[in-house]
Amino acid sequence: MSETGGALNVQELIRKKRDGEQLDAHDIRAFIRGVTSATIQESQIGAMLMAIWQKGMVAEETTALTKEMMMSGNIFHWPQEWARLVVDKHSTGGVGDKVSLPLAPALAACGCKVPMISGRGLAHTGGTLDKLESIPGFNIQQSVDQIRQILKDVGCCIVGQTENLVPADRILYALRDATATVDSVPLITGSIIAKKGAEGLCALVLDVKYGRAALYKDFNSARNLAQSLITMGNSLGMKTGAVLTRMDTPIGRCIGNTLEVFEALECLKGRATDDLKELVTSLGGYLLWMSGRSPTLQTGQEEISRVLTNGEALHKFQAMLEAQGVSKDTAQALCSENIDYFNLIPRAEYQTEFERCTLSFPGTVLDIDGLLIATVLHQLGAGRTKAGESINYRVGAELLVDLGQQISKGQSWIRIHHDCPKLSPQQHSDLQGTLVIGSGESYQAKARVTEFMPPPSL
Amino acid sequence: MSETGGALNVQELIRKKRDGEQLDAHDIRAFIRGVTSATIQESQIGAMLMAIWQKGMVAEETTALTKEMMMSGNIFHWPQEWARLVVDKHSTGGVGDKVSLPLAPALAACGCKVPMISGRGLAHTGGTLDKLESIPGFNIQQSVDQIRQILKDVGCCIVGQTENLVPADRILYALRDATATVDSVPLITGSIIAKKGAEGLCALVLDVKYGRAALYKDFNSARNLAQSLITMGNSLGMKTGAVLTRMDTPIGRCIGNTLEVFEALECLKGRATDDLKELVTSLGGYLLWMSGRSPTLQTGQEEISRVLTNGEALHKFQAMLEAQGVSKDTAQALCSENIDYFNLIPRAEYQTEFERCTLSFPGTVLDIDGLLIATVLHQLGAGRTKAGESINYRVGAELLVDLGQQISKGQSWIRIHHDCPKLSPQQHSDLQGTLVIGSGESYQAKARVTEFMPPPSL
Repeated sequence: MSETGGALNVQELIRKKRDGEQLDAHDIRAFIRGVTSATIQESQIGAMLMAIWQKGMVAEETTALTKEMMMSGNIFHWPQEWARLVVDKHSTGGVGDKVSLPLAPALAACGCKVPMISGRGLAHTGGTLDKLESIPGFNIQQSVDQIRQILKDVGCCIVGQTENLVPADRILYALRDATATVDSVPLITGSIIAKKGAEGLCALVLDVKYGRAALYKDFNSARNLAQSLITMGNSLGMKTGAVLTRMDTPIGRCIGNTLEVFEALECLKGRATDDLKELVTSLGGYLLWMSGRSPTLQTGQEEISRVLTNGEALHKFQAMLEAQGVSKDTAQALCSENIDYFNLIPRAEYQTEFERCTLSFPGTVLDIDGLLIATVLHQLGAGRTKAGESINYRVGAELLVDLGQQISKGQSWIRIHHDCPKLSPQQHSDLQGTLVIGSGESYQAKARVTEFMPPPSL
Repeated sequence: MSETGGALNVQELIRKKRDGEQLDAHDIRAFIRGVTSATIQESQIGAMLMAIWQKGMVAEETTALTKEMMMSGNIFHWPQEWARLVVDKHSTGGVGDKVSLPLAPALAACGCKVPMISGRGLAHTGGTLDKLESIPGFNIQQSVDQIRQILKDVGCCIVGQTENLVPADRILYALRDATATVDSVPLITGSIIAKKGAEGLCALVLDVKYGRAALYKDFNSARNLAQSLITMGNSLGMKTGAVLTRMDTPIGRCIGNTLEVFEALECLKGRATDDLKELVTSLGGYLLWMSGRSPTLQTGQEEISRVLTNGEALHKFQAMLEAQGVSKDTAQALCSENIDYFNLIPRAEYQTEFERCTLSFPGTVLDIDGLLIATVLHQLGAGRTKAGESINYRVGAELLVDLGQQISKGQSWIRIHHDCPKLSPQQHSDLQGTLVIGSGESYQAKARVTEFMPPPSL
């Protein structure tokens, strides 16, 4: 029945994927163009997304999908002399993940150009843009010309998706969230790699997380996604590698937009927690190595570590804040030593510390459930349930204990920043459940980074 | 992540079905209410439809779906004395299927009340409402009060879905078509039985077609659907039986809206082709038997046959035309003997007869591909590609030969009624392909009705 008309062709495309047939490049082009031009109904996009979720895609289909998405809008072109300088990282998202904030300026301090296009938070996952917008004046909306200028002057920027960059993804991303089709390897691959491809990168590193608070709970699923991302990124001409990292406990000590900015600043002042520093140096060092700026991964990591401790990365961050609209005074104050951050950006109305009620003391902190903390903070206003909702930047949590640390009776382990006067009994009991305490010294510290997956050619 | 908000609950419903879990009655109620109230996005409906298509539904889910759809709008209530009189039939749709037109008045002539709610054509399938609207003045829009009055005065009406009858189905039906999720047993069952349930029937017969020009090509799939429809109809308290019928060749001699009205009138004047008469008497007789008005299926069939030949059904049809807005003069003229129908309803601009070019003569007509003819007529304007499109009632085809008939050189076998001056070379060659001619006398006539599937209690 598909002899005439655009409408019937869409049904035929859906039927093909529904029945597990392979879509050819022409089919995928028609679909992505229909999505971008809004000639395909949203119900049809929803059905196609579900069919792709159910039936998957072979590598040829994922390649075509990624390329068509990338080509759905403008593509960045950089000066010839930046050909081996433009790099970026992408993370699949986690709790307390503020890695981008110190990483972009650290890379810029090492001579890279980092046109970092970030996203907003959804559900329990925070968003880099939300974190930065908690700084008064910070403007995530920058035109292509402005981005080029900031990269020229500073070396890094962290911005929102420009109007014409991968418009197909903006549409599909929102609908994937609405239709419970987020966790599909070809759809994730298309979304991430198309955006990074359009940034005109020479090298890309992916932080693919697995564990309780990650999209993929198990290592093998995450590894499978990483392999798809690496294949696709390299096929588009970017040197692409991945790092598989654990995502069970929060990264660093702070969760929540404002608090994470402060922790990122502490990292840039040489005072990062071990796990945050491990992630920033691993991902940054990997990019320096892949782009040929460092002879080995290890020297790359050392280089990143160096600019984090000698103030060069902090200096780039301050310049980036000013270039993106923050007043010189505020940027300078945030980046100076011995500042009380809450004098610059107000804290929430209430700070409540919690101690663990049922506990044989003393004990060792064996586990902290990042997902459960994020869920409580989400309820307190730190996160979005739907795209476009406003959020409360000030809501957050500070962990007052480390994994492996001894904890004694009456000792507070978490400080919640909140604007509603009281947490509900359910929220109290959820928080109690996030902390696992054991006796003795059974704790074995684990590195976040589990595996480096290099590009095929390295 | 589903702790708050309606939006996330929808995603959770989709995820459940996506993963093959069983939806409970509460889930299905939430989904159908969300569809009806438009609080669920169309993309989410599309994804859910595809998930249902992929994963199916168990009987409990289909029951809940059907009941919730039925309850999504108003339900007809009839006078107590009609309790065992109100009957209807539903057909899964075919080429040249004008059975409803003589069947409704035949049943009315046998004392039944027939509140037949019909649909419009889509793709290659014709619609009863389109056929009737080709009669000047015929009004398919009747309020519940008007329907009750017509049933009281005449005994039958053929109308469009009223605004408030099963609104959930109106939405889902359109989206199923758009999303290639039409051929799903639970979705078909919900759609058909919810509408018939809302009509307040005591008995329902289903004409479930299989074959080349039917939704289901093979007998077993059609039988599977019939079984689901029978189970669901009876569970809602309607005596429900099904007839499995072949749908390879067109029913009767005419295809196209106006031409099919004329053929239905000929049937009501006692001059039906064998296959059309077989269908009308089988379906009608089955209803008379199921509703207890005839002691056996056979006496029911004889009763229908009697009112088709003695003019009683024709008289009811004429009264129905007048009750639904056709002028007394037109209704009377259409229903009189020896009328030239084209004097009352103009024919298309062109009538072109075709003969079979490549043929060793003489031969026997072994097959006529109804789907291919319908596809050509669709292109000529007889059918819709999208719901809501206008169509040309006058476009159609008359078969000039019967199955099993000898055909000789130069003999025309089909007359196409068309308003564009010429058929395209492709249409010419498609028409050539519809006729299968064999040598000798190898043709074995087959009955349309392959199996009667009674309600569980009969």
